[in-house]
Amino acid sequence: LQGGTVPEARRMLNALHPAEIADLLESFPVAERKLLWELVEEENGGEVLLQVNDEVRSGLIEEMDEAELLAATSGMDVDDLADFMQDLPKTLTGAILRSMDNQNRQRLEAVLAYPEDSAGGLMNTDTVTVRPDLSLDVVMRYLRMRGSVPELTDHLFVVSRFDHFLGVLRVSDLLTRDPASPVADVLDTEAVAIAADKPAREVAKMFEDRDLISAPVLDERGRLIGRITVDDVVDVIRDEAERSILTMAGLGDEADLFAPIWSSTRRRALWLGINLLTALLAAYVIGLFEGTIQQVVALAVLMPVVASMGGIAGTQTLTLVTRALALGQVASRNTRALLVKELGIGILNGLMWAAILAGIAVIWFGEPAIGAIIAAAMVINLFVAGLSGVGVPLMLKRLGVDPALAGGVVLTTVTDVVGFMAFLGLATIFLI
Amino acid sequence: LQGGTVPEARRMLNALHPAEIADLLESFPVAERKLLWELVEEENGGEVLLQVNDEVRSGLIEEMDEAELLAATSGMDVDDLADFMQDLPKTLTGAILRSMDNQNRQRLEAVLAYPEDSAGGLMNTDTVTVRPDLSLDVVMRYLRMRGSVPELTDHLFVVSRFDHFLGVLRVSDLLTRDPASPVADVLDTEAVAIAADKPAREVAKMFEDRDLISAPVLDERGRLIGRITVDDVVDVIRDEAERSILTMAGLGDEADLFAPIWSSTRRRALWLGINLLTALLAAYVIGLFEGTIQQVVALAVLMPVVASMGGIAGTQTLTLVTRALALGQVASRNTRALLVKELGIGILNGLMWAAILAGIAVIWFGEPAIGAIIAAAMVINLFVAGLSGVGVPLMLKRLGVDPALAGGVVLTTVTDVVGFMAFLGLATIFLI
Repeated sequence: LQGGTVPEARRMLNALHPAEIADLLESFPVAERKLLWELVEEENGGEVLLQVNDEVRSGLIEEMDEAELLAATSGMDVDDLADFMQDLPKTLTGAILRSMDNQNRQRLEAVLAYPEDSAGGLMNTDTVTVRPDLSLDVVMRYLRMRGSVPELTDHLFVVSRFDHFLGVLRVSDLLTRDPASPVADVLDTEAVAIAADKPAREVAKMFEDRDLISAPVLDERGRLIGRITVDDVVDVIRDEAERSILTMAGLGDEADLFAPIWSSTRRRALWLGINLLTALLAAYVIGLFEGTIQQVVALAVLMPVVASMGGIAGTQTLTLVTRALALGQVASRNTRALLVKELGIGILNGLMWAAILAGIAVIWFGEPAIGAIIAAAMVINLFVAGLSGVGVPLMLKRLGVDPALAGGVVLTTVTDVVGFMAFLGLATIFLI
Repeated sequence: LQGGTVPEARRMLNALHPAEIADLLESFPVAERKLLWELVEEENGGEVLLQVNDEVRSGLIEEMDEAELLAATSGMDVDDLADFMQDLPKTLTGAILRSMDNQNRQRLEAVLAYPEDSAGGLMNTDTVTVRPDLSLDVVMRYLRMRGSVPELTDHLFVVSRFDHFLGVLRVSDLLTRDPASPVADVLDTEAVAIAADKPAREVAKMFEDRDLISAPVLDERGRLIGRITVDDVVDVIRDEAERSILTMAGLGDEADLFAPIWSSTRRRALWLGINLLTALLAAYVIGLFEGTIQQVVALAVLMPVVASMGGIAGTQTLTLVTRALALGQVASRNTRALLVKELGIGILNGLMWAAILAGIAVIWFGEPAIGAIIAAAMVINLFVAGLSGVGVPLMLKRLGVDPALAGGVVLTTVTDVVGFMAFLGLATIFLI
């Protein structure tokens, strides 16, 4: 892109797929990103805005005037538009609603009535419906007259006169069954239908488990109000995975590689502040044993090893349990078995590494008592690590806190405090 | 399930969807899981085996005899079967191949010829092909004669007499266009086609970016050899996300909540061993300053705070950069801008928390010099954290090591060593 002329760059850029343009925009620092965004043609603009991550999108939207934004939204599906409108200033959402025809406005309002992360918020309203008393032949003629079907149409929806959902007519059946049969003979009444208030995460699990392409969304009275397609579900799955990794590192929703320095600093400061508190708690525990350390300085040298091993072992258990909790696989019936298993692993690994570390400590400091003490502290800390690895996420969940968010901090605080306390405490009792 | 009779439990269990049975099996300890597995009916067995995670699957397979395994595999699609056969003992794969008819055996061998994580390994061979000179009407009659189409068929593949791929005929066009038109007039020659050796990760990105349901797979000579469907791609995305979280915690492929204690202990020991080495390196650095600590014990109390803040700040940068690397968004053109930004954040957060920590240290120990020294060490360590957060993943990638696997260990080793070295070193120079 560098070195070429502007028209050349524009042509090369717009020859790419919108998803590739989005990737490219995300990889540029803010100033260059703006220049590049100027080159994206209007017909690609809407699709590119949908493909970049939320944070980059807000930045691009700030650069656009009302006319450009209206043009970008004009080709969007209702579900994408509903999602997109969350990021727009209030004044503009009014302008967009006014620019739509009656039917589309009603459809958009139907989607906006549900939370963004529910089935209703994910759905599109572009359903093709048929009545059960038609023959397949008539349905085919109807489709030909219609001239097109929405993307990702793997079945048509069969509804009663009052829009009550009766079942689905699979396109594959439409193609392979006798054209004279009525829809009622071919329709699948067992097909999955999704309640509009079902959380997006559960919708994703259902699509994944049952290999769905699309599924009808029903309101609380069983009427068809839209459909969810697999492409949106793939985005939900990817976003969720991404968010959990960013969250664990305390990055919050910082997805933009080139977010402004000052806003990144503030966002990350929160996590650093929480960590400072827990680190000071650990420091306080060490402070309780100042006298002991003064007499045996080797303790100060070795104490971080005990704390750090506990943190690693605890994180292993925590990760496994947090994941199982998210999958709904931990319940009162198996908590006990899980705890026994993790404590067993903690003790076994504790004994093994305690022996090795004790050997190293004895060789290093020539003091058998220090070896014995560090070994005992190690076994204690890895036992506690197993206990907290199971207990902390369960407790957080009961308190209504996301274990993926807070689990790591709470756990390492416990293993730091217990690690320092056990090691320095035993040393105070037996060495001084 | 408890309390009821066995036939009752069996009925309840088999009324569930295979994916739900799989979830349930995963949530039980090994002994109960075996009992429950006995109750799963043969017709559900194959599907359940495909839905449980790799580790649980191996455990269940061990319980089955050859006849049961042959029965379970009999209904599987070729792509699933190819995947499944990786877990079977060699003797059994022979028996399965012998039990198949010629055509299916050839298909299976075509899939097995490619690596599991490539397009060829993901593909299924159940393609429906048509010639370009037929009319849509004839295609419809052919489909009706065929009686069924494979699941997730959103288009048919148009091939030449020599199986060369020419384009796709969308089912939606088949339904809506004039039945008298020839396929050649309707086919889409621009449709995405995937080379058999493309890595699964790139296939997933392509499906996600372009909202695909299915895509043709071509061999190196442009012949159609199979197709990939979105359900398998969803599994790839989920598995990848899962693996990266398990990997970061050093759990390797431990996905079974109730893996046997001894094998879990061994698997996790590796990560603990690596951590022991890095912790000992940090201890060695502290050991260099034993004399200083002996004179000012407050240093031992405060030193873990400096190390730990560096670790957190570095992990934030590392997570952001590792993710961008995986998305292909980091290249030589933007490394410099990225580094400048992350160092800026490191310095700003360093200055802010240095001031706060210095205040706390002065109040706690009544010694202004200690406050100044810890503040300086904090700024140095957060600067180095930003530097390594960008540098470590780039360096690991150049060395061919997965940054998601090794990044965290290398980074915290650097921030521990630098944290202790800066704090204790400055103290030795200015306090002693």
